[in-house]
Amino acid sequence: MLEQLKQEVLEANLALPKYGLVTFTWGNVSGIDREKELVVIKPSGVEYDQLSRDDMVVVNFEGEVVEGSLKPSSDTPTHIALYKAFSDIGGIVHTHSPWATSWAQAGKAIPAFGTTHADYFYGDIPCTRQMTEQEIKGAYELETGHVIAETFQEMNPNAIPGVLVHAHAPFAWGKDPNNAVHNAVVLEEVAKMASRTLVLQPNAQSMDQHLLDRHFLRKHGANAYYGQK
Amino acid sequence: MLEQLKQEVLEANLALPKYGLVTFTWGNVSGIDREKELVVIKPSGVEYDQLSRDDMVVVNFEGEVVEGSLKPSSDTPTHIALYKAFSDIGGIVHTHSPWATSWAQAGKAIPAFGTTHADYFYGDIPCTRQMTEQEIKGAYELETGHVIAETFQEMNPNAIPGVLVHAHAPFAWGKDPNNAVHNAVVLEEVAKMASRTLVLQPNAQSMDQHLLDRHFLRKHGANAYYGQK
Amino acid sequence: MLEQLKQEVLEANLALPKYGLVTFTWGNVSGIDREKELVVIKPSGVEYDQLSRDDMVVVNFEGEVVEGSLKPSSDTPTHIALYKAFSDIGGIVHTHSPWATSWAQAGKAIPAFGTTHADYFYGDIPCTRQMTEQEIKGAYELETGHVIAETFQEMNPNAIPGVLVHAHAPFAWGKDPNNAVHNAVVLEEVAKMASRTLVLQPNAQSMDQHLLDRHFLRKHGANAYYGQK
Amino acid sequence: MLEQLKQEVLEANLALPKYGLVTFTWGNVSGIDREKELVVIKPSGVEYDQLSRDDMVVVNFEGEVVEGSLKPSSDTPTHIALYKAFSDIGGIVHTHSPWATSWAQAGKAIPAFGTTHADYFYGDIPCTRQMTEQEIKGAYELETGHVIAETFQEMNPNAIPGVLVHAHAPFAWGKDPNNAVHNAVVLEEVAKMASRTLVLQPNAQSMDQHLLDRHFLRKHGANAYYGQK
Repeated sequence: MLEQLKQEVLEANLALPKYGLVTFTWGNVSGIDREKELVVIKPSGVEYDQLSRDDMVVVNFEGEVVEGSLKPSSDTPTHIALYKAFSDIGGIVHTHSPWATSWAQAGKAIPAFGTTHADYFYGDIPCTRQMTEQEIKGAYELETGHVIAETFQEMNPNAIPGVLVHAHAPFAWGKDPNNAVHNAVVLEEVAKMASRTLVLQPNAQSMDQHLLDRHFLRKHGANAYYGQK
Repeated sequence: MLEQLKQEVLEANLALPKYGLVTFTWGNVSGIDREKELVVIKPSGVEYDQLSRDDMVVVNFEGEVVEGSLKPSSDTPTHIALYKAFSDIGGIVHTHSPWATSWAQAGKAIPAFGTTHADYFYGDIPCTRQMTEQEIKGAYELETGHVIAETFQEMNPNAIPGVLVHAHAPFAWGKDPNNAVHNAVVLEEVAKMASRTLVLQPNAQSMDQHLLDRHFLRKHGANAYYGQK
Repeated sequence: MLEQLKQEVLEANLALPKYGLVTFTWGNVSGIDREKELVVIKPSGVEYDQLSRDDMVVVNFEGEVVEGSLKPSSDTPTHIALYKAFSDIGGIVHTHSPWATSWAQAGKAIPAFGTTHADYFYGDIPCTRQMTEQEIKGAYELETGHVIAETFQEMNPNAIPGVLVHAHAPFAWGKDPNNAVHNAVVLEEVAKMASRTLVLQPNAQSMDQHLLDRHFLRKHGANAYYGQK
Repeated sequence: MLEQLKQEVLEANLALPKYGLVTFTWGNVSGIDREKELVVIKPSGVEYDQLSRDDMVVVNFEGEVVEGSLKPSSDTPTHIALYKAFSDIGGIVHTHSPWATSWAQAGKAIPAFGTTHADYFYGDIPCTRQMTEQEIKGAYELETGHVIAETFQEMNPNAIPGVLVHAHAPFAWGKDPNNAVHNAVVLEEVAKMASRTLVLQPNAQSMDQHLLDRHFLRKHGANAYYGQK
């Protein structure tokens, strides 16, 4: 079942080492079939060069394996919580990409310092609050999803397609698995440039709001004019 | 038409990923036929590995497409404004190369700290002023060209073949598309080394003027003696 | 003799340049046969692309060459001292990987700033004290092993599989040579991210103890649930 | 003439891009035949992938071309001055490798912070004084050699096989062209780690003198015991 989605999820997972976002197996991508409410996700701890389409695991919204002989990623409950909370997204990626992870470890949001950021993220990329002892000792991966959803209570996940989990690492998402990886690449690049910006100018301020609007909307607004039609 | 220039522009665009200057499609190169006043430029949002010579778009000084079935880069008005303002240049490149972009986001000119810089840029590489709300909301890409030209009112664009656009990213230029890319590579390398210099010596001063003269002129002056004749 | 262990040690040594941990011959891996108390180690100063299985040198716990025509790594006495002190480990790796070495040169332990660290190291990665004049002028490589062992008097080397030797570089270990290299890769990655974390947040604190527990134990505890069974 | 030395100089030049030490043509290697007092050096401004053995230029101690149809590197007078001043060296390399160049631009010597440094450089790697207006406007490349030689008046170039030229870039040398490149690679690696050490510990002190002695002498002293015999 879901052969095409499995193929997309496989290719998106293979893109992680290609873009330098992962060391070993530190990353996973999922995709969702919204109609069937089924999620396709990477199996846990399997190396990328050994993955095949049929290794992809299908789980339902209760986290039960519906198809596949391997265990799904241990982060599966986080993915499911995000699919439930963010109803428009079609793919999710989690990595420990080093620049974004450094911001997560610093516990700081990535300010929108320039148009590279504005082309994809319509404002600062937030960092979650610290998780509580209860959340950590409880259904930890599920609670990770909840704390991300809480962070977006006042924000639009379609306009800010990524987050830093405090003392952990980034999650990014998009309309499909490939788009989620695309946003994860941008997040890492933006994290790198923001850090270097602060080294040059410790008091750097967020960019002009008009410029942020212009760049985000020329790519994503109703009157977007970037790229081919 | 302009088959040779299209080929040059194609090859210069393909050099961007080769030199590590771009992520995804974040860069574009153009070239100009000064006699015909026609500009050849990369199409918008097309990936480098899918570009062919015939995808290159020909536009006139009014920004109208003269030949080509694809939309030209959304930055085309900036390129045209620069060709109008800087009458000697034959090629322009725009990237979001990470080190130069970090300087642009910091809103700071790159000081001439050493001979690597002096071999190509005859003084600091300037950063434009911030653009106004009116400029951003108006013909934004055209105004980007104007603010660059304004930055060079008291500077020689042939001696300083590059600029940082505030909170945005670098533009570089040269006598032809290939030379423009060459200068963009140097700009990124110089941006990297200048940042690292400041980490080691926060009070680093610009280099001795005599040394700057010597290095720039041994490569670019009337009595240049670097390279083969 | 020990043909399989030699093969494992060879492959682990070849993994060092593959993972970017070494320049020239600045690294070595060993493995041990606990029953025979024999250590297999890389020969001294031989380049990785010239190594074959039969170049691996077999030494006993007195450091005497039992088999092999080449001189063993000059760090052999350090390896032997660690095998004696840490009775559960099966492989050791020494490199001058640049991020970890920078921490060693700074004389600082790497704090546990996030879950990447916690997945492999159950607390800060310590830095040894400085060695004394007597230790340096005496059996230096053996004393290097002793000062590492001293550093772990109050720590569990199975839970913290690596160390920084003051003003020198890292050692890492594991259940076998391959696992030791795995931990050396993690150590380098963690060192990089911790340094960048401090640039963003000079007052960064070690991560929450509950989060450290959760991540280390979900991979290494009795009830570990990461990866396939 | 000097076919073997030309081959060595060619291979040493080709090693520069392989080790990531150069951008474009920003580097050159020479070798010397001490008996004939002839220097073989890279031609000026020729790209590495176009170099052949017969492109190498032979010059005498007066800087006159003795053989070869191309112009020698513009840095040739610096090389000759160093061969005259440092009578034991057989090869010289000049690059603008980015980490070492950043130290040169900061005008600072690279402190001996650890054993990686001590394995090759027996103390701090010095930075020359600034050159005077007269030196810069005069026989600049020759004077560059003189200011390096002046820097080593109280130092042994065989024990410190490299230098930073103020606001310029590094030179390194060795017993032959290949060994000079080897030292240039180490210089760049050491420059990188020293910079990162200072980020972690701004008050980092030079390493213990006994440890410096031990490491340099175990590789280079009369009783060296590193590597195969």
